[in-house]
Amino acid sequence: MIDKQLVAWGSSGNIIREIAEYGAEQAKKGETVYNFTIGSPSIDPPGIVRETMERYLNAVPAAKLFTYAPAAGYPAVREKIAGYLTKTHGVDYRAQDVLVTCGTSTCLAVLTRVLLSGGGRAMAFAPYFMDYKYYAEAVGSSLIECPTEAGTFRLDLAAAERALAPDVQMLVVNTPNNPSGVVFSRESLTGLAALLERKQREYAHPIYLVADGPYRELVYDGLESVFLPELYKNTIDCYSFSKGMSLPGERVGFMALRADMDGHDDLLAACMGVIRAFGYICVSSMWQQVAADCLGATSDVGVYRANRDLLYGALTEMGYACVHPDGAFYLFLKTPEPDAQAFCRRAMRENLLIVPGDAFGTPGYVRVAYCVDRGTIEGSLPTWEALAREYGLK
Amino acid sequence: MIDKQLVAWGSSGNIIREIAEYGAEQAKKGETVYNFTIGSPSIDPPGIVRETMERYLNAVPAAKLFTYAPAAGYPAVREKIAGYLTKTHGVDYRAQDVLVTCGTSTCLAVLTRVLLSGGGRAMAFAPYFMDYKYYAEAVGSSLIECPTEAGTFRLDLAAAERALAPDVQMLVVNTPNNPSGVVFSRESLTGLAALLERKQREYAHPIYLVADGPYRELVYDGLESVFLPELYKNTIDCYSFSKGMSLPGERVGFMALRADMDGHDDLLAACMGVIRAFGYICVSSMWQQVAADCLGATSDVGVYRANRDLLYGALTEMGYACVHPDGAFYLFLKTPEPDAQAFCRRAMRENLLIVPGDAFGTPGYVRVAYCVDRGTIEGSLPTWEALAREYGLK
Repeated sequence: MIDKQLVAWGSSGNIIREIAEYGAEQAKKGETVYNFTIGSPSIDPPGIVRETMERYLNAVPAAKLFTYAPAAGYPAVREKIAGYLTKTHGVDYRAQDVLVTCGTSTCLAVLTRVLLSGGGRAMAFAPYFMDYKYYAEAVGSSLIECPTEAGTFRLDLAAAERALAPDVQMLVVNTPNNPSGVVFSRESLTGLAALLERKQREYAHPIYLVADGPYRELVYDGLESVFLPELYKNTIDCYSFSKGMSLPGERVGFMALRADMDGHDDLLAACMGVIRAFGYICVSSMWQQVAADCLGATSDVGVYRANRDLLYGALTEMGYACVHPDGAFYLFLKTPEPDAQAFCRRAMRENLLIVPGDAFGTPGYVRVAYCVDRGTIEGSLPTWEALAREYGLK
Repeated sequence: MIDKQLVAWGSSGNIIREIAEYGAEQAKKGETVYNFTIGSPSIDPPGIVRETMERYLNAVPAAKLFTYAPAAGYPAVREKIAGYLTKTHGVDYRAQDVLVTCGTSTCLAVLTRVLLSGGGRAMAFAPYFMDYKYYAEAVGSSLIECPTEAGTFRLDLAAAERALAPDVQMLVVNTPNNPSGVVFSRESLTGLAALLERKQREYAHPIYLVADGPYRELVYDGLESVFLPELYKNTIDCYSFSKGMSLPGERVGFMALRADMDGHDDLLAACMGVIRAFGYICVSSMWQQVAADCLGATSDVGVYRANRDLLYGALTEMGYACVHPDGAFYLFLKTPEPDAQAFCRRAMRENLLIVPGDAFGTPGYVRVAYCVDRGTIEGSLPTWEALAREYGLK
């Protein structure tokens, strides 16, 4: 009577959980564990977050501060977000174009349902955040995995053109990318936008670009992080305060639709319908107001850049192959044996915890989340070194 | 291409929204509005909530406090909730029987999917919270509305027996009840449990009782609020910190499954599967820890009792008919004309805002949420009086 697919989705047995549980066990025993599995910021939110929170707590009676927010978010919060996007990215938004959500995961789950309920498939560039696939399958659809350039993980427009079947209704683009750390260039994204325009005409239906953009402030060395709605009007910008503002556990984000997008009003109404009928109701009243007042403030991103430099420098020196990560806080390492899961289990026995690329549609790689204390990176280097020697990397 | 049903669910045009928008407009113009539409606590959370929050903010580094919580909730939070339920209600729970959720709405949406994905229907006693119906329809099923005793809204076991079709997989019971304020008696609930046991045997499948219990501390005059899992093992207890702890906007609640329930492990795994594949991920890290540490603390419920006494006394004195509300913070008033929507619109023109019972599967009634300032109640009385005269109630 209980759907086997739901049970399967929720059952343990996947390697990330196995690794996480092993790490927790070891840590309990007092062992030193080098945990690079979780994409949760290691540095505090900017100071203004706590100040703003205290300001609300002191100025607004608690019953009023903690009351139900409207399903779409507070009008003032939507207004602030729209104003910020307009000013920062030069694309016009109005309050009614913005829905406050519990982070980008909820955006993606809701949009997948809205865009695929009438049929059609989703597409994403591999490597990609694996839950995209679950969201598509959960609405009875599927996800087309489009390859990127081998080894560099840059957009491959020829591959994209081949993969863009007539029934693709949504394309998810995540830049800076989890797990590769690659930041897609303006040139390649402009090419992608032109391809989508052409395919829309050819297929005579809109193809929505879902911009999964929680890492957009996490870009190093002065590189540009392109705001996708600037290039393509049928873009839904999905954002979360989880990464740049270090608030992952408080679940605040938003989606923003360009005012001139095809089917704008129906799309918004359908999102509200899903939010209601599927019980995704409301984002923390307090946190949405605090986050909106802190728009533009970010944690000290220099910490991640220093982590990256240390870890990328050391690992490549040891002989590991890795694309240079220009953004987010991940290294995507080619494993010294073809089976990434086997390599992760080998590393796990040394208390070095990493995630196999299989989980991101890309076998043969591992994701190393370097949003950790510098001491964790420094402490792990001898283990990385020993593994490199064991696998004969140099 | 965008599903019309989703658009319809999310589109405006329903009377509650019309009333709320009118009220907001009037308030903006500086008009005095008597707003009885929203079931959001008017009194502050107990003091311990702010103290506990400050304790966490001061003791735990922000990056650690605001990190991602596990999908099922923090183990320590689940442990505290299990311990509290066991101690308070005398039914044994373990940490692994508890899932932390974004309030009871999420519990109900998730459980509806888990219990009805394989077919079957849901059932609820009218009047009921209307979103039950949306949740059932959203998974391609439907909700059977079982009547209660006319006028008293007490359980009618004969009607329940007639309504309990062989394909009913879940029965939602909400006591103290929104919108009637009725608290179902131990005697009637014991009878219901016996009926369910009998029907389970007859139909040879479990019938899950989903106890929607966010109002359980809001019971007056020493009446008992029965903990349903005590009476029937296939009960899933759904709770929210929204009402008793005055935290509706912060979205924290939980579900708890009896350890001896039929299909316990599959059911839990399927809930986790839905939480993952549908993107309901995580409850505020901070708030779940704060709420769990405050378990058992409630806002000053005496304020609601005093509100009830004032409003119930005054309205019945004026000639309005209303069941005596023993719990929650709602009056369910018989409208002086058969069309409750018309009565709500009439009241709206006097800036008196109430919700038609149609929204709760019960035409001919209105819900009056008395979780408001005492001044709002006092100020509204002349308007109620004028309407009573206009309709010739006395």
